[in-house]
Amino acid sequence: MKIIIIGASGTIGKHVVKALEQDHEILKAGSKSGDLQVNLNDPDSIKQMYEMAGSFDAVVCVAGDGHFGPLNKMTDADFRVSVNSKLMGQVNLVLIGQHYINPKGSFTLTSGSLGDDPVVLGASLSTVNAAIDGFVRGASIELENGVRINSVGPDVVEESPGYFPYFQGRIPVSMHRVAQSYVRSVAGAQTGKTYKVL
Amino acid sequence: MKIIIIGASGTIGKHVVKALEQDHEILKAGSKSGDLQVNLNDPDSIKQMYEMAGSFDAVVCVAGDGHFGPLNKMTDADFRVSVNSKLMGQVNLVLIGQHYINPKGSFTLTSGSLGDDPVVLGASLSTVNAAIDGFVRGASIELENGVRINSVGPDVVEESPGYFPYFQGRIPVSMHRVAQSYVRSVAGAQTGKTYKVL
Ligand SMILES: NC(=O)c1ccc[n+]([C@@H]2O[C@H](COP(=O)([O-])OP(=O)(O)OC[C@H]3O[C@@H](n4cnc5c(N)ncnc54)[C@H](OP(=O)(O)O)[C@@H]3O)[C@@H](O)[C@H]2O)c1
Ligand SMILES: NC(=O)c1ccc[n+]([C@@H]2O[C@H](COP(=O)([O-])OP(=O)(O)OC[C@H]3O[C@@H](n4cnc5c(N)ncnc54)[C@H](OP(=O)(O)O)[C@@H]3O)[C@@H](O)[C@H]2O)c1
Repeated sequence: MKIIIIGASGTIGKHVVKALEQDHEILKAGSKSGDLQVNLNDPDSIKQMYEMAGSFDAVVCVAGDGHFGPLNKMTDADFRVSVNSKLMGQVNLVLIGQHYINPKGSFTLTSGSLGDDPVVLGASLSTVNAAIDGFVRGASIELENGVRINSVGPDVVEESPGYFPYFQGRIPVSMHRVAQSYVRSVAGAQTGKTYKVL
Repeated sequence: MKIIIIGASGTIGKHVVKALEQDHEILKAGSKSGDLQVNLNDPDSIKQMYEMAGSFDAVVCVAGDGHFGPLNKMTDADFRVSVNSKLMGQVNLVLIGQHYINPKGSFTLTSGSLGDDPVVLGASLSTVNAAIDGFVRGASIELENGVRINSVGPDVVEESPGYFPYFQGRIPVSMHRVAQSYVRSVAGAQTGKTYKVL
């Protein structure tokens, strides 16, 4: 398969690349790094990325910014950082990409454990993570030509120690388990699922 | 208690008013109707509504537009109808309202069954409904002074026959059960919950 991985250079993304590149051709994408440049916040840029990519079978997104901060200081603008990047960026990858992806292709998006299981400072991420999983359920029953869609929802990962103080008492999840959830989505046959990595 | 009900004139809202006005003082709000005018899509208008309302104990929102249409024609702009109104409108009611509401007050938002249980044409509503329930979980652990937050997630209601063709095989839920879920949220002590009405 030919697979576009957005966020290929990231903490999680580089492990996803390693796990998938053994069996597949990978096109790495990022806002600055990789084979293809794309700005998730801009639908025109997403369309351009697909035009550049040529024919492909799968899209994996492990990118998307979120705002982390106290609710009692949170503004509409803060909240929209998460909505415009992590949520609408990934939604637009699918709304636009459905017109480019090969039959029987797949989209795999990234949400996270905060959707179900909040932490202090994480209200906008709880919102967009739950939103992404809801989008996956909704889109899965309408995508055509056998195209599938799933999300991966990891808890804090072992290679992001900067987040550990905000996730006390949680056991950071292994990069191996996280990366294999993306493999499972791409190589499997399920659709409309969220693979939680807890 | 003094309760602001946004969407008080709506299909669901008028039953919520009836159920709560027996025991409480109600301020009805809507974009055109009611005691207070507010445009959910505009944070400045929400701030103005709270300034006008004076001291209050609870906010109930049974308003918020969504886009209903086929995924293969859906655009960023279509999707943002749901995000800007039903999602960010209700989020902003809380982000702004937390600075006005009385101690031990409550926010009750409206999501819907599509978050868990999609129908064709409903992808953007599956997204924002799940998002609202995620926001409620995230915000519930940060609201101060004993302020609570919940959502009500109804399936299609018996007084919205226009939606029945899109919800075939579902049993429309009674207005009594829906309205009582809002009462339960306002009069109860739970927080971070979604009361599903299925
Ligand atoms: N780390 C965790 O513990 C954790 C847990 C659960 C969920 N998540 C989620 O997983 C995703 C990835 O997290 P991470 O920690 O791996 O992030 P990261 O290390 O910061 O990597 C981000 C990746 O996204 C790319 N990127 C950044 N902005 C972009 C944009 N506007 N358009 C396109 N690409 C962009 C970056 O490449 P360039 O530098 O080239 O732009 C980079 O490859 C995020 O959505 C995060 O919320 C993370
Ligand atoms: N009906 C169902 O079967 C069903 C099922 C599940 C969930 N829901 C959700 O429940 C909510 C209410 O649905 P409904 O069927 O009762 O709606 P509705 O009958 O269309 O009523 C909408 C209410 O919201 C007010 N409103 C409209 N736009 C507004 C704006 N921009 N700012 C502030 N207020 C505004 C309207 O008053 P004005 O005319 O004065 O603006 C009216 O009171 C929606 O979010 C819907 O998604 C409905």
